[in-house]
Amino acid sequence: MVTDKDRPKTANNAAIKRLAREVASAGPRNLIVVHGGGSYGHPLAKEYDVAAGYSSPRQMAGFSLTHQAMVELNSIIVEALLGEGVPAMSIAPSSFIVTEDRRISDVDFAVVSRAVESGFVPVLYGDAVLDSARRFTILSGDQLAARLATDLGAARIVFGVDVDGVYTANPKLVRDARLIEELSLSQMRGMVKIGEALSTDVTGGMLGKISEAGPAVEAGVEVQLVNALNPGVVHDALRGEKIRCTWLRR
Amino acid sequence: MVTDKDRPKTANNAAIKRLAREVASAGPRNLIVVHGGGSYGHPLAKEYDVAAGYSSPRQMAGFSLTHQAMVELNSIIVEALLGEGVPAMSIAPSSFIVTEDRRISDVDFAVVSRAVESGFVPVLYGDAVLDSARRFTILSGDQLAARLATDLGAARIVFGVDVDGVYTANPKLVRDARLIEELSLSQMRGMVKIGEALSTDVTGGMLGKISEAGPAVEAGVEVQLVNALNPGVVHDALRGEKIRCTWLRR
Repeated sequence: MVTDKDRPKTANNAAIKRLAREVASAGPRNLIVVHGGGSYGHPLAKEYDVAAGYSSPRQMAGFSLTHQAMVELNSIIVEALLGEGVPAMSIAPSSFIVTEDRRISDVDFAVVSRAVESGFVPVLYGDAVLDSARRFTILSGDQLAARLATDLGAARIVFGVDVDGVYTANPKLVRDARLIEELSLSQMRGMVKIGEALSTDVTGGMLGKISEAGPAVEAGVEVQLVNALNPGVVHDALRGEKIRCTWLRR
Repeated sequence: MVTDKDRPKTANNAAIKRLAREVASAGPRNLIVVHGGGSYGHPLAKEYDVAAGYSSPRQMAGFSLTHQAMVELNSIIVEALLGEGVPAMSIAPSSFIVTEDRRISDVDFAVVSRAVESGFVPVLYGDAVLDSARRFTILSGDQLAARLATDLGAARIVFGVDVDGVYTANPKLVRDARLIEELSLSQMRGMVKIGEALSTDVTGGMLGKISEAGPAVEAGVEVQLVNALNPGVVHDALRGEKIRCTWLRR
């Protein structure tokens, strides 16, 4: 929701400012922010088919332009946070992560953890990264957030989405879709299995996040999906207050 | 020379485009580009005294703003290179380097070397980085370039400067200053020693580069200081053609 998805490279400055304020007023400690691509990274990644990996020299520029678009969005978000007094620090995933066939294998989060220890709020993002099998690919913010939480021993991941959490059906399409307040690891695995078997996402678009969150939940991280469109929800989530949302728990 | 030093955040777009063309027409292979801060990084780094390290919370925003200014300049340069057909890839030094009391000690250039192997031209820069002793500091492009060359076994470093090389005196002030065509490692060390003893730079502003280049020259890297203000010089240097310049050699 930090961009207008229908218009390329259009930031939703009002939403970014509101979320920056919510983060600031929550008084973040040991916080890491990860954002997605919205209308910055996605159109270019799609145009050049960056996620599939190298197939033509023309794509190399597309890889780089996708990263540059993400840098542009990241700068807007970092500067909004700085403007609200949050000691944000931009960290570029592609500058230190190489994936192996689209997945993070070995990674050294030393700069991220040092930034947190130094009092900064690192701000990372889904990015076009080098890949050992495909030359390059797309690393999603979801995969990155889950791995960061696991490796750095985070207590919690808060996924800000545009609905209240995981539903029994897509709440934007199905009127009697019900919010699921808590999902266990085995329920998560069941949903992912059904999704893979039927090639359909019964959760209202949350299957990717549920799938990526699996290893983090298994490692003891609590995962919360919250509606970041509703003013105050991100603030309340960061403060640990009770809100309408979905919890993923071991 | 890629910025107007007297006006904050003013890129010299004509110079950037010309240099991007010279790089493109030289047909770079195994090239890494490192640029400085010009009117982007320097004014903010100075205003917040970032190089000295942490002394107040206010500086943390200054650290981050300095990096963001460098990101902005880097984006302009990367996009100019892409525009001329060079497969440039931005790599942010502060995302993977932590200095120890202002110096790079351990560093893993895996992403940089993989980028080169994959056919990209990595573009790095002098940056505001985390530091284990001072919390943060400034890492100069000169220190970074020398270390990159040493660790990755580069054949050569080309320093683009605004004079023809190292002079017997500052050529902008002293009329009969003479260009020194070659300096040996022991001559370089002598100059650095004199500079430290007298707190004066007798080389026409090149002492920092000579000092940083020392370990690279010692490791067998040839270092060339060339006048990047003169059209064609960077192209000729990259092609290995004979030009008026200063060589630093073991």
